[in-house]
Amino acid sequence: MVESELFSLLSKSGFQIPPFHRFALQEPISLDFYPIALKIESPKIVHKSDVGGVAISLSNADEAEAARTRILSRIAEHTITLDSSDGFIATAMIQGEELFAGVVNDPIFGQIILFGKGGVLLELYRDVCYIDIHAGETEILRAIRTTKISKLFEGFRGSKPMMDQIVSFIQTLQRFIKEHPTIRECDLNPVIFNANGLHVVDARIEYHTLTSDTPPTQRLRSNFFDNRHVAVIGASNDPNKVGYAIAHNALSFNGKLSLVNARGGTFEGHRLYCSLTEIEDVIDTAVITIPSCHVIETIEALIPKGAKNIIIVSAGFKEIGDTRSEERLKELAEEYNLNIIGPNCLGYYESTQSLNLTFGSSSINKGSLALIAQSGAVLSSLMDKATQEGIGFSHILSAGNMADMGFADIITMLSADPQCEAISLYAEGIQEGKAFLESLRSCTKPIRVYKAGKSPQARKAAFSHTGNLSGDYPMFRGLLESVGVKMVDSIEALLYARNFENIAVITNAGGPGTIITDVIIERGSKLYTLSKNDLEALDALLPSNWSRNNPIDIIGDARSERFEAALQCVDAMEGVDLIYLLITPQMMTDTLEIVRLLERPWSKPVFPILLGGAMMSEALLFLRSHSKPCFTTLHEAGAFL
Amino acid sequence: MVESELFSLLSKSGFQIPPFHRFALQEPISLDFYPIALKIESPKIVHKSDVGGVAISLSNADEAEAARTRILSRIAEHTITLDSSDGFIATAMIQGEELFAGVVNDPIFGQIILFGKGGVLLELYRDVCYIDIHAGETEILRAIRTTKISKLFEGFRGSKPMMDQIVSFIQTLQRFIKEHPTIRECDLNPVIFNANGLHVVDARIEYHTLTSDTPPTQRLRSNFFDNRHVAVIGASNDPNKVGYAIAHNALSFNGKLSLVNARGGTFEGHRLYCSLTEIEDVIDTAVITIPSCHVIETIEALIPKGAKNIIIVSAGFKEIGDTRSEERLKELAEEYNLNIIGPNCLGYYESTQSLNLTFGSSSINKGSLALIAQSGAVLSSLMDKATQEGIGFSHILSAGNMADMGFADIITMLSADPQCEAISLYAEGIQEGKAFLESLRSCTKPIRVYKAGKSPQARKAAFSHTGNLSGDYPMFRGLLESVGVKMVDSIEALLYARNFENIAVITNAGGPGTIITDVIIERGSKLYTLSKNDLEALDALLPSNWSRNNPIDIIGDARSERFEAALQCVDAMEGVDLIYLLITPQMMTDTLEIVRLLERPWSKPVFPILLGGAMMSEALLFLRSHSKPCFTTLHEAGAFL
Repeated sequence: MVESELFSLLSKSGFQIPPFHRFALQEPISLDFYPIALKIESPKIVHKSDVGGVAISLSNADEAEAARTRILSRIAEHTITLDSSDGFIATAMIQGEELFAGVVNDPIFGQIILFGKGGVLLELYRDVCYIDIHAGETEILRAIRTTKISKLFEGFRGSKPMMDQIVSFIQTLQRFIKEHPTIRECDLNPVIFNANGLHVVDARIEYHTLTSDTPPTQRLRSNFFDNRHVAVIGASNDPNKVGYAIAHNALSFNGKLSLVNARGGTFEGHRLYCSLTEIEDVIDTAVITIPSCHVIETIEALIPKGAKNIIIVSAGFKEIGDTRSEERLKELAEEYNLNIIGPNCLGYYESTQSLNLTFGSSSINKGSLALIAQSGAVLSSLMDKATQEGIGFSHILSAGNMADMGFADIITMLSADPQCEAISLYAEGIQEGKAFLESLRSCTKPIRVYKAGKSPQARKAAFSHTGNLSGDYPMFRGLLESVGVKMVDSIEALLYARNFENIAVITNAGGPGTIITDVIIERGSKLYTLSKNDLEALDALLPSNWSRNNPIDIIGDARSERFEAALQCVDAMEGVDLIYLLITPQMMTDTLEIVRLLERPWSKPVFPILLGGAMMSEALLFLRSHSKPCFTTLHEAGAFL
Repeated sequence: MVESELFSLLSKSGFQIPPFHRFALQEPISLDFYPIALKIESPKIVHKSDVGGVAISLSNADEAEAARTRILSRIAEHTITLDSSDGFIATAMIQGEELFAGVVNDPIFGQIILFGKGGVLLELYRDVCYIDIHAGETEILRAIRTTKISKLFEGFRGSKPMMDQIVSFIQTLQRFIKEHPTIRECDLNPVIFNANGLHVVDARIEYHTLTSDTPPTQRLRSNFFDNRHVAVIGASNDPNKVGYAIAHNALSFNGKLSLVNARGGTFEGHRLYCSLTEIEDVIDTAVITIPSCHVIETIEALIPKGAKNIIIVSAGFKEIGDTRSEERLKELAEEYNLNIIGPNCLGYYESTQSLNLTFGSSSINKGSLALIAQSGAVLSSLMDKATQEGIGFSHILSAGNMADMGFADIITMLSADPQCEAISLYAEGIQEGKAFLESLRSCTKPIRVYKAGKSPQARKAAFSHTGNLSGDYPMFRGLLESVGVKMVDSIEALLYARNFENIAVITNAGGPGTIITDVIIERGSKLYTLSKNDLEALDALLPSNWSRNNPIDIIGDARSERFEAALQCVDAMEGVDLIYLLITPQMMTDTLEIVRLLERPWSKPVFPILLGGAMMSEALLFLRSHSKPCFTTLHEAGAFL
């Protein structure tokens, strides 16, 4: 398609195109708009500039005529013979900010719009955002506002606000792509932005060789979290085996439990069935920990038993190169409408029925947070930390290789489960990005995501570890943020689901108070502003040289009594939603007595930060043994905000 | 100064100016360069655009003449009467990338050059660097390379490398400012960059009302670290008093020690002198912990005793509003060439003579790192942590209010001291930025700096805490990095002086291995690449499914024997300079046995990362009680890189 045809197509699709006119080769150039760019148009010439086929900044008919002659002679020098089907295109030159808009075809997310600053600065600043072609207006706005150039659209330095035009331009592009399913990728580059809107000045379109690759729609699944009769296949009396840990943890289940081991016998007083055929009832849920070579035949045996949910803990599939068995798992899942978790995973936990089918911690606190992780080791570390800090879960799901159930399926199910109030996800590589985005978009619960594999080196490590594509991090982050997900920068932040807006800091030290202020602001949270009443209340309790500002510096000689008074006062302040007790080892600091204050019930979360080493260890041990959260560095304390 | 005069001045000073010509008001415009901008020049018109006094993109004499007539009639409409001293300036319009160069007069650092991307994007991207007007070529280059736009100067997409011209432009600007001492601030905006170099297209200069404000030169001081006879003034038997802690810590001093308390008596078997007059010898160093109202008279009494070095621990000066006493301290210091540290500080430590004059930890390990901190609480926390992790110091200096000795003085002295091999500094507000920069520039030892007060909220907290200006963070960071300082993002990173280039990770977990890879790359360090020999050596020791890549994933079932074998192998690899042992709580992990490996001497630093909670606590306690460093989160483990 030559430029004038492309311009006509874009213009018909609703894009604003600069005035242009096509001339036959020998036709004199005469226009009512200047300055113009004049370019040769011929299917024989792909790179016009290389053959001198372009002239810019032509201010009048004389200059245009001179340019036409010049171009024709230069093309002749390149021994290209033009014919009557060739011609010139004259385009009005438009002044303004150069932007870029394009549609890429990402291997994970499919067709995604890139939009932002264009020209040579596109590469230097990478000031672009990522917008799904199915994104609605809020999502589009959220994405655009992550770019710095978007300040220009909001009415910068008194200029006219143009955000509506920008959003409508993106929507035109979304429509254009959907209405032309044969387009695979397209670049509108540059798009010139000025007070009259956005003008597509140049474009490139790439078509599919295939005419369609519509993604598979998500299967309607039965509820995974409905577990009545659970079978542990591979229960073992050998405490070094995964099958021991799972069977042991499973004993706390409120429903019916059957343990299976080919050798029979008993497990902690419970019968071990030699085979599934010995079990007569319907088994809805099974966890499998036997060697990988027996997994598929076991599932085939489970199907006639009525199994719907299968957790495959066993390793030895895609991660060691066996993709064939995973394909078979997928086929079985589709044919019999199974929900398969794994293989190569740490297991599954569900709180309402005390169902712990993991080989991680056996003492999981009940709570309202669902934790999904693609790495068993990350999951076991977080579970161990959660136990230590008294954090509870509604669900824990180790996704493993995701042969059948992926993040999209899991999030869709968690969205509907009333026990789960917030979702945290640790992801390395993902599949079916569009379905994943849609599940996040539809979920009304707060979601936090940590994505590993930001650097090429880490993506290599992740791929060898899970066999999944890790993808482009900025795109992943941008798309997830635009659907409202909170992307966190540490895995520990996945244990905290609540977003804190107004923070109070009570401290015995000015310097660390300054640092935590920076940390809080950097994380996008705020320090609560003390009201006149608050100041008076604190004045009555504290020495006269306290900071009279938040961080509330109660001075280096503060002992537990003063911390207690300040804490009681701040705990009663309505606007505060989190309190940090920031304690440094001063000569007279009775740190243990201070942290003992946390044994009492406070109306707000109170998180101690113990800044130091040996002098803090007794207090740290106290908090650990009382399952209380505790931080030992200022940056760790801010990481979950 | 009108534009044509300014252009002449800049041109004479070595700047490249576009062709320009001044015309009398009625003179016909005729030039041999086009396109041009035409502007009215009159001292009566400050804002030319506001009165229609500017026309741009004029391509020939006809257009220029038409513009001249148009401008004159618009000015007449504004009822401004021009006379024969007024005229027009015609300037060639230059195409290229808009840059900005300016000299600001910073309250802390004095005259500093700002250079970077200009135009409307200056505000949006803040892609600028900061260059001292005394910076040499290396420093200029380091600064410029922190900008993204600098890629354009290095030969971007096959264009001509132009970095030499950029550096020479900055040097021209430095010379210009030094040769015109009455210039206070100046903006060259825009500067147009293209293949022909940099062209100053517009300029604004602001002059001093005063003709000179040369900064005070640094005083030549006696060596602070030469301490023979030390007096503790305010030694106390009350263990709740600072005077107790300091006197107690001072007892380990190798030189002569005198303890003073107005009430006399003894302190742990040592005589307490009632007054300085009772001491006959020369006292070269004194630490003062008595109430602030007696400090100045005490110093006056110390001067006849020959005191050169005075550490004022006592608080109650500038930080509570008493600037008068601090001025007196400064006067005394200058008159008698004293080195005064403080007031309002935690004290001083020097390793060669075991001189601990702090009221922080009494068990300080000897080492080669000098630690300077402006916050006593940050210092005591870091000292406590250092004791726990077995980190040693050559010097510790609590800077306090810096009435006399500032960072520049301290760094200059540490530069010359052979015990000190690296310097770490915690700074909040600073004074005399030029002297500070010069001390850093002259120091050949590695220096790390943490600067608090990034956000306005934190700057407010810092000011109320120390009474010093905290300044603009990006400028502080930029200037320090350009003199070769490593700016760190956590205070704990101040305890690690060495920069690690090639890191090996031994782990029992793939997911956390992926995350630590991201952390290492983000910090600017590298993962060591395993050679063919390394791979073979590890193949011989590890199960066949190990990662065959660094992070060296030795698989989830690894016990201490496998960790030991891998550690021995990696410790022998020449290119590795740091080893992380990244341990997650898997079912069979014998974490305590693994960390016991650290009791042995290894040729490289080995830092364990214990990722988890309760299951890791025994190993963590072991490491703490053996004064070994240990990290519990991946981001903490990377923070010091």
